Amino acid sequence: MPEHRKFEQVTAKAHANIALIKYWGKRDEELFLPMNSSLSVTLDKFYTETSVQFCGKLKKDVFIFNNNIADEAETNKVSNYLNQIRKMAGVERYAMVQSVNHVPTAAGFASSASGYAALASAAVRAIDLDIDQKKLTQVARIGSGSACRSIYGGFVEWTKGDLEDGSDCYARQLENEDYWDLSILAIQLSAEEKSLSSRAGMKLTVDTSPYYELWVKEAGKDLATLKDALRHKDFEQLGQVTESNALKMHATTLGANPPHWYWEPGTISVMNQVRKLRDSGIPAYFTMDAGPNVFVLCQQRDKEVVEQTLLTLKEVQKIYVCQPGPGVSYLAK
Amino acid sequence: MPEHRKFEQVTAKAHANIALIKYWGKRDEELFLPMNSSLSVTLDKFYTETSVQFCGKLKKDVFIFNNNIADEAETNKVSNYLNQIRKMAGVERYAMVQSVNHVPTAAGFASSASGYAALASAAVRAIDLDIDQKKLTQVARIGSGSACRSIYGGFVEWTKGDLEDGSDCYARQLENEDYWDLSILAIQLSAEEKSLSSRAGMKLTVDTSPYYELWVKEAGKDLATLKDALRHKDFEQLGQVTESNALKMHATTLGANPPHWYWEPGTISVMNQVRKLRDSGIPAYFTMDAGPNVFVLCQQRDKEVVEQTLLTLKEVQKIYVCQPGPGVSYLAK
Repeated sequence: MPEHRKFEQVTAKAHANIALIKYWGKRDEELFLPMNSSLSVTLDKFYTETSVQFCGKLKKDVFIFNNNIADEAETNKVSNYLNQIRKMAGVERYAMVQSVNHVPTAAGFASSASGYAALASAAVRAIDLDIDQKKLTQVARIGSGSACRSIYGGFVEWTKGDLEDGSDCYARQLENEDYWDLSILAIQLSAEEKSLSSRAGMKLTVDTSPYYELWVKEAGKDLATLKDALRHKDFEQLGQVTESNALKMHATTLGANPPHWYWEPGTISVMNQVRKLRDSGIPAYFTMDAGPNVFVLCQQRDKEVVEQTLLTLKEVQKIYVCQPGPGVSYLAK
Repeated sequence: MPEHRKFEQVTAKAHANIALIKYWGKRDEELFLPMNSSLSVTLDKFYTETSVQFCGKLKKDVFIFNNNIADEAETNKVSNYLNQIRKMAGVERYAMVQSVNHVPTAAGFASSASGYAALASAAVRAIDLDIDQKKLTQVARIGSGSACRSIYGGFVEWTKGDLEDGSDCYARQLENEDYWDLSILAIQLSAEEKSLSSRAGMKLTVDTSPYYELWVKEAGKDLATLKDALRHKDFEQLGQVTESNALKMHATTLGANPPHWYWEPGTISVMNQVRKLRDSGIPAYFTMDAGPNVFVLCQQRDKEVVEQTLLTLKEVQKIYVCQPGPGVSYLAK
């Protein structure tokens, strides 16, 4: 390692994203290579800020999460991830990692995408690894699959690729966050209990659901439809294919052996209310990841009425009104 | 028509049934020929009693339903159905039909199976048509598909057949109602609103869901598994395949275009509670038809604890504790 390296502290900020075409199923568990390409929108309200500094004096990695020393399991996960980055850079220093999460994870919103996007971005720059954005999405991906989409703002496609080594599997921005005035309402439900992690549910579904193979085909078609909707800024087309794609993903879990499902009563309550909103002439569409919470898409002009209507449901605890957010940024010290 | 016929009033009583392997999709809309074979258990608590008399003096069919004159649409349905029976018998008399329903239809439990099984049984005997039980199931079927299964008590298979004229499509009893001490809890939920009839949902799914073709294959496998469970009186096997089959059926609707779903918040609430019951060591399994209500299967020894546990859910309005019921019977005047 060249002696002139300074190993300064680098702080990166990355936003969460919600998939409109879902990532559901891995073709390689080690490299986080997906079975299907996916498409997401980055969210302005939810993000993670992470600082990394590789220090010569440290005897092991230190991970401070939300201002507390993380437990051993969490620290080991971060260490194992940093090992891969150290290997790429040919550096053997341990790191001080400080991460603050602005994603309501206790409420069931996933933070691994913004978490690993911020960690990858900060660590790569702190270790002075000279890679382009495309490669950065791949480095983020090996931390958590969907993290690769959080490198960019706006509308982002994660191309599945075909090669075994994953070199053709990466994320790229289709449109930036200023392209389209959408509102994305993140609906926090009460009393959710996630019975099965998304990682475990995904694997069980790939391994046992008779519907899984068709899901992969459908996801391919839906992706093309959604990209077409983006090009034409056709909100109804975007909403319809988003909702349909989410439901087809959840359908695969019902076919697994044993069957499983991520929905809570409030999930259905929101789904039914969104259907009623549409019946009353307000275009709104929902999507759900592998958990009970629901995201509702609508046009900016309708966001107040959609929010107020959904707040009347007894299972709805809180609503975060988001819009397309930016990609990774680096903060001055 | 022979003059010695007396055309007496005949009263038949037929019970509802709940499918453990679902009937989902028609291969012939006119003849009610299904895409897949199904298997049901007849329910002792829900039934319809129907009297039919073919009177020379009537100018048209009269249909009295729950002690009220039925509306024109309902009367026309019954008339059209009786036309087919009149044609088979070579008789041209109109009928007085009186039907009383002991199925809580307003609460979303289907009555068409017991309704048409009772009507078919009473009408065939009242018109003095000499047919065997197998043929009677076919006559019931052309009124409402699943009515063919309500001709028999206990566990009943409806064989889909392959012939275009439907002559090899019929129901038969596998085991009678005394064969196995099961409890079937019919859970009535509050605030259900059926957004799409089962007939319309079925057709939309057959026509548009990418998952539908696989459903047909899965239903065939599930049927074999369930018959095996019946032979060995293996409750867990029976419960698992019943639940899995229902979920696979509902999964097909999520794939339809546009997607649809029959679940209400209470549906998920009961599903999650049944999962918790199993986690606590009590074998219980659920199934749902094309509507929000849930049926829970358990062994007789567990019925009180299952009932009491489910009654704690706020969405549960009432529970009918059923067991396997008898086939069609004829009542003395």
